[in-house]
Amino acid sequence: MRTVPFQPMDPALYREVVRRALAEDLGWGDVTTEAVVPGELRAKGVIVCKCNCVIAGLDVAAEAFQQLDPGCAFDRKVKDGDQCRSGDLVAELNGQAAAMLTAERTALNFLQRLSGIATLTRRFVEATGGKITVLDTRKTTPTLRALEKYAVRAGSGTNHRGGLDDGILIKDNHIRLAGGVKEAVRRMKDADAEMPIEIEAQSLEQVDEAIGSGADIILVDNLPIDQIREAVSRIRGRAKIELSGGVTLERLPELAATGADYVSVGALTHSAPAADLSFELEPE
Amino acid sequence: MRTVPFQPMDPALYREVVRRALAEDLGWGDVTTEAVVPGELRAKGVIVCKCNCVIAGLDVAAEAFQQLDPGCAFDRKVKDGDQCRSGDLVAELNGQAAAMLTAERTALNFLQRLSGIATLTRRFVEATGGKITVLDTRKTTPTLRALEKYAVRAGSGTNHRGGLDDGILIKDNHIRLAGGVKEAVRRMKDADAEMPIEIEAQSLEQVDEAIGSGADIILVDNLPIDQIREAVSRIRGRAKIELSGGVTLERLPELAATGADYVSVGALTHSAPAADLSFELEPE
Amino acid sequence: MRTVPFQPMDPALYREVVRRALAEDLGWGDVTTEAVVPGELRAKGVIVCKCNCVIAGLDVAAEAFQQLDPGCAFDRKVKDGDQCRSGDLVAELNGQAAAMLTAERTALNFLQRLSGIATLTRRFVEATGGKITVLDTRKTTPTLRALEKYAVRAGSGTNHRGGLDDGILIKDNHIRLAGGVKEAVRRMKDADAEMPIEIEAQSLEQVDEAIGSGADIILVDNLPIDQIREAVSRIRGRAKIELSGGVTLERLPELAATGADYVSVGALTHSAPAADLSFELEPE
Amino acid sequence: MRTVPFQPMDPALYREVVRRALAEDLGWGDVTTEAVVPGELRAKGVIVCKCNCVIAGLDVAAEAFQQLDPGCAFDRKVKDGDQCRSGDLVAELNGQAAAMLTAERTALNFLQRLSGIATLTRRFVEATGGKITVLDTRKTTPTLRALEKYAVRAGSGTNHRGGLDDGILIKDNHIRLAGGVKEAVRRMKDADAEMPIEIEAQSLEQVDEAIGSGADIILVDNLPIDQIREAVSRIRGRAKIELSGGVTLERLPELAATGADYVSVGALTHSAPAADLSFELEPE
Amino acid sequence: MRTVPFQPMDPALYREVVRRALAEDLGWGDVTTEAVVPGELRAKGVIVCKCNCVIAGLDVAAEAFQQLDPGCAFDRKVKDGDQCRSGDLVAELNGQAAAMLTAERTALNFLQRLSGIATLTRRFVEATGGKITVLDTRKTTPTLRALEKYAVRAGSGTNHRGGLDDGILIKDNHIRLAGGVKEAVRRMKDADAEMPIEIEAQSLEQVDEAIGSGADIILVDNLPIDQIREAVSRIRGRAKIELSGGVTLERLPELAATGADYVSVGALTHSAPAADLSFELEPE
Amino acid sequence: MRTVPFQPMDPALYREVVRRALAEDLGWGDVTTEAVVPGELRAKGVIVCKCNCVIAGLDVAAEAFQQLDPGCAFDRKVKDGDQCRSGDLVAELNGQAAAMLTAERTALNFLQRLSGIATLTRRFVEATGGKITVLDTRKTTPTLRALEKYAVRAGSGTNHRGGLDDGILIKDNHIRLAGGVKEAVRRMKDADAEMPIEIEAQSLEQVDEAIGSGADIILVDNLPIDQIREAVSRIRGRAKIELSGGVTLERLPELAATGADYVSVGALTHSAPAADLSFELEPE
Repeated sequence: MRTVPFQPMDPALYREVVRRALAEDLGWGDVTTEAVVPGELRAKGVIVCKCNCVIAGLDVAAEAFQQLDPGCAFDRKVKDGDQCRSGDLVAELNGQAAAMLTAERTALNFLQRLSGIATLTRRFVEATGGKITVLDTRKTTPTLRALEKYAVRAGSGTNHRGGLDDGILIKDNHIRLAGGVKEAVRRMKDADAEMPIEIEAQSLEQVDEAIGSGADIILVDNLPIDQIREAVSRIRGRAKIELSGGVTLERLPELAATGADYVSVGALTHSAPAADLSFELEPE
Repeated sequence: MRTVPFQPMDPALYREVVRRALAEDLGWGDVTTEAVVPGELRAKGVIVCKCNCVIAGLDVAAEAFQQLDPGCAFDRKVKDGDQCRSGDLVAELNGQAAAMLTAERTALNFLQRLSGIATLTRRFVEATGGKITVLDTRKTTPTLRALEKYAVRAGSGTNHRGGLDDGILIKDNHIRLAGGVKEAVRRMKDADAEMPIEIEAQSLEQVDEAIGSGADIILVDNLPIDQIREAVSRIRGRAKIELSGGVTLERLPELAATGADYVSVGALTHSAPAADLSFELEPE
Repeated sequence: MRTVPFQPMDPALYREVVRRALAEDLGWGDVTTEAVVPGELRAKGVIVCKCNCVIAGLDVAAEAFQQLDPGCAFDRKVKDGDQCRSGDLVAELNGQAAAMLTAERTALNFLQRLSGIATLTRRFVEATGGKITVLDTRKTTPTLRALEKYAVRAGSGTNHRGGLDDGILIKDNHIRLAGGVKEAVRRMKDADAEMPIEIEAQSLEQVDEAIGSGADIILVDNLPIDQIREAVSRIRGRAKIELSGGVTLERLPELAATGADYVSVGALTHSAPAADLSFELEPE
Repeated sequence: MRTVPFQPMDPALYREVVRRALAEDLGWGDVTTEAVVPGELRAKGVIVCKCNCVIAGLDVAAEAFQQLDPGCAFDRKVKDGDQCRSGDLVAELNGQAAAMLTAERTALNFLQRLSGIATLTRRFVEATGGKITVLDTRKTTPTLRALEKYAVRAGSGTNHRGGLDDGILIKDNHIRLAGGVKEAVRRMKDADAEMPIEIEAQSLEQVDEAIGSGADIILVDNLPIDQIREAVSRIRGRAKIELSGGVTLERLPELAATGADYVSVGALTHSAPAADLSFELEPE
Repeated sequence: MRTVPFQPMDPALYREVVRRALAEDLGWGDVTTEAVVPGELRAKGVIVCKCNCVIAGLDVAAEAFQQLDPGCAFDRKVKDGDQCRSGDLVAELNGQAAAMLTAERTALNFLQRLSGIATLTRRFVEATGGKITVLDTRKTTPTLRALEKYAVRAGSGTNHRGGLDDGILIKDNHIRLAGGVKEAVRRMKDADAEMPIEIEAQSLEQVDEAIGSGADIILVDNLPIDQIREAVSRIRGRAKIELSGGVTLERLPELAATGADYVSVGALTHSAPAADLSFELEPE
Repeated sequence: MRTVPFQPMDPALYREVVRRALAEDLGWGDVTTEAVVPGELRAKGVIVCKCNCVIAGLDVAAEAFQQLDPGCAFDRKVKDGDQCRSGDLVAELNGQAAAMLTAERTALNFLQRLSGIATLTRRFVEATGGKITVLDTRKTTPTLRALEKYAVRAGSGTNHRGGLDDGILIKDNHIRLAGGVKEAVRRMKDADAEMPIEIEAQSLEQVDEAIGSGADIILVDNLPIDQIREAVSRIRGRAKIELSGGVTLERLPELAATGADYVSVGALTHSAPAADLSFELEPE
């Protein structure tokens, strides 16, 4: 579970995906820009917020512009993780006009998606009143996980595991196939000695079994609020507690008040609306 | 602008991206499944709707399971584009238990995202009462455009251009750099003789210029409803009309009533909440 | 159909293919150069025309040299699209001798092929006397389409669609499977509202059907010259007209005189002989 | 220098490039076929020669069809290397109609290019009357070398080295930078003990130096015919002799009569016109 | 730290790297096999141990053969993790002779390397007498980590983290830059709430600091044996203990006797000699 | 067989594999470094030998650091091929602390492996007393062949062929399938006119046949020393002689004394222990 301090992403995490995204949008070339804008024209561009949002992905956006025009200057006016207001100037660019026009949509597609995730995450984090830690999930966009997990951190969220290889989570399907909570945890303990073992519990009975099995974290999934409270009281002190299932901003205060440690929210990455950002160009 | 009939996607459009997505999630291996589920165990799985939604992406989900277990049977109970209700059985699988567990999240990440897009698109299309055609945009997830455009079609939407190379759209930035609507269209006409020329207009003055320039489609962007009505009345018969900017389900009836031909909605792909689908496994 | 003004290619269109081409030629290393040329030696190189030709691909050639030696200076003496004569100096290079020797063949393979296409295209365009527009086709070298379409533009040609996704062309096989011209166009109209619909006609009967179906462009394929003239007179004013099939430089004047709008020539890309260019190096 | 027997290509040599070629042509989908041809329709297709040609690339063409429809039957009626006549049936296909239509152009682009190379090579080989061996060069299409070298073999030609790593050829630029023929060969001998050393000679003086240096093969480049004859008489018995430079079908007999061992022809791969092949589909 | 049960690798972990390895070895084709072995010949092959070893990588070897000949039968006579003796039959193959000859080296390169790692690991594990757990490290061959970690498991070893993203290890360089053990652990605790924190200690002072900081695992690196004993006695019960630095088979018994939990051995993957295996073919 | 002079590798040979290696190690990010080291901190790093070794791969290591921090200065204190002693300073770096920490393991994994190969090679070369040439084989790490062959040269070794396409070697399996030495060589001679033909002989009978067949190089494989001496005396003057099979440092003097030309050693690349190198960082 990775949280603050918030640091820039390694460029190795996004260079290749930006290359693919540009190739996808370009196809065999930008018919409109090539026809309408002279190749030698230089321009000044601005990225501006059209909504209140938390910015994330400036380096990725800059990379998109600079892969088409290595000389393009990208002057950040805010930084990733900043809460911005509608009308705020986000970045100022100077470079070849045609390259900026061609890269614009790709750059914004990254920036708007990542800022949307950061913004929704910040709202969830703020709604907790600091009483519970907001986690993301593996319900991310295929091939963009590293970027989306970064956006969650930009929004002050905390990352749950990043893949099947870097965290143990025994889910309902594992339990069913292993023949029960106890057996599943036993097998897992045989297999890995150090990583914390997290197991899903979908009923109070399973909660009890999970406690008995010696799991480190119990994921209380999809229970009604009174059963969640009961689950928390049974688990407290014996394992960390994560809540999940139908978590909304509205329900967050009551979930936060239960005393659980974590609440994981798939919506942070699978359902965050894009932030609204505009790009405007004018000749130098 | 691509619309019905709705056809399956060519596998060449998704095989490689599924491979990348599995690699992303797997890292160096699925620690939980390898520990908890015996390699030789076979199981039966079901994908079930947990919400009302339009399904899209069954072939992509099947591909994810079958890349890990080529012998995995994937029996579709519905087909892409079908309106499903919460509780409906979507597909039944039979194969290696471990492979299904490992592929589950990747398969669902595709299926939930694409079904989310199809579902939102269907809602927009239905809200039009058939009076206006709902278009998507290039505001898609980087590297997933072909799949998301397909999901829009599954939701009965119509695809606007797929990239910078397969449609002409002269936007505000092009106009500003070219020195005006007229000059931009003139340059474009010199450059391409057959593709329809679409141009953005952000005021009634620009609408008039666009009409005068001989554009084929005029994109009326972000005007108040009364000015949209006026724009439509000026353009009608001289060019096709596309509306955009802040299009919501609530505003759709009044936009549809203007008599414009198209309304384009970035939200279909950049802000569609994922459809809720579950995957459940049990030993054979 | 993309034509002038002629603009430089986005580097995103060729960087990766140059990387692959160098890897293909290098294998595990250049045995001759490593043995014969000291690593620290610097040299001056010149690219010179050995035939009259239209140059295309200078940026691609420069990229090949600079991927092996980022400090290699590549001084263009002409620019893409220029008509050159045998003996003309095309570019002057300064950099590491070994890197230039190793990159030479890859750079020239691109430059000679693209210049060959530009040269043949220019000959076709000039043979039209300006009376008909010369189009390329999708009969390009697999994986080099964007570059070859660019070379056609460098030769003053006009690009037909770049792929299956950015233009509609209902060919003989589509017609046969759809059950006739009329039905094929009807289905296409149902499916796409704005892109111009082009349909192939291989007889005067099909020409009449195509006119009746409301197609935007009729591709008159492989008819004798008198039937072409008849076809043009029937179509004129009702659709644009493209001619194809066995188009040679010799036949071009009579085809141009028919009054058709376009003539498409697969040979521009599938059969253009390479331009003859040499690369000579000497120690600084 | 690789010659007969002629064997099929390893699929590992073309699977990936076919994947890339299909992706290039498909973009985000085949708008025409999806609209016009029902997904469930099956069809029978035939590939037919429209010219006299030597076929090469049937496996590659089959791969293109089968990547889109793994169940597509591809029944070869001739085999690579066969001399075919206009009208000959090359292959018969049975499978999904839409997949065949979508793959058609990619399959034919490979098949026509490779058959064009095989055909031109066969003409050169036949023009030699068996008196000299016809070699290709590294002047191949970037990223298609393995396929084009195979096509040369299909045309009964012989392959020169395939890349910078699998043969030694000291060219004029190497000689100039090394400070002369003698020094270049000396360095090369120090560096590699077993591969034959080939060196270019552009004058009779250089021929003498090359003989004196102990090179294994002397590439007599671009000399007039009488000097070629003189060069051959000086070299004979002391090294193998390869001729190059401006080799045409017309000049081949006189070159073959010189008694040289090899003649290398860049045109085989850089300037071979595509063979004319058609693909016709009809409903089953 | 991933240990038993030992399960097969997901094919998604090796399919692509096998493809790259074959392409690397094949270049533009196998000159020897194509010349010497008729394409239609079928053969029977056997893989045989030439040394005592633990086998690992049979699925990877089979994949290499089957990528060149999908119909090649690969009949396993032993399974990964089995201890074999010199002379044992490992697998029997039936398929195209040429494909087997071409794939042979690639298949064996994988199998010999992975079996070498499994064999060395097994020796280390056995030398511990079960008193300490043998871990691998991140000192693996670039791009082969998942395979090499699998081979360690095949040899009964236990995997340490697989990458920078799936385990926390604060090393000497981190400590120095953070300004000390305490501060480094404090920052790490702020940043991640659940993954166990491991920290390196290179002196008894650092051991004390590490204990005081609340680390979960202390990596005692490169201390003399008496200081290791002292370190273990100080740490025991307060954190898990991992030993590293110059671990040899000879030193293992005394290290195992210290009572530490883990010993990590870079040599398992960076210095394991390949297992000796042969491949023999004969005509069917 | 490629030997001196020793030249730097073309960056095109390692840039892509370094990118893949970093991606492999990074996964979705370096959890430890991001938590513990402030992003803006700069540091000075040193690479130091912890053993006597021959260095190889400095450019590759530098590339790893500079892909994460293009501004990272990498000051070489020794050069590839230098014999270093434990304690020697290899390189000094200045750049972003976090990037150096993240790249460290990848950079060292390359450098240690390649230096290990160079070191072992140098030992073999020195043990020959200059009386026989030490060759590598194709028994290299899959996907790292170009780098490992370079490391062999750095260790003063000589490269045998780099792949199946750049050298002819008729091995026991080829012979068996062809029906004998004579027939195998005859087929090979028909197929390739210039590359030297090497053939394996596993008995004195096969040696005689190989001589009789006119092979250029005879690979005497796995014979006892007295038979090797006999083989050499029979072959001498009629073909070059390569020895292989169970070559150890101990046996090298007696093999060198036989008068054979070459000895090939798979162990150079498949079993070289990694060189021990450390990386230490401190704040600037």
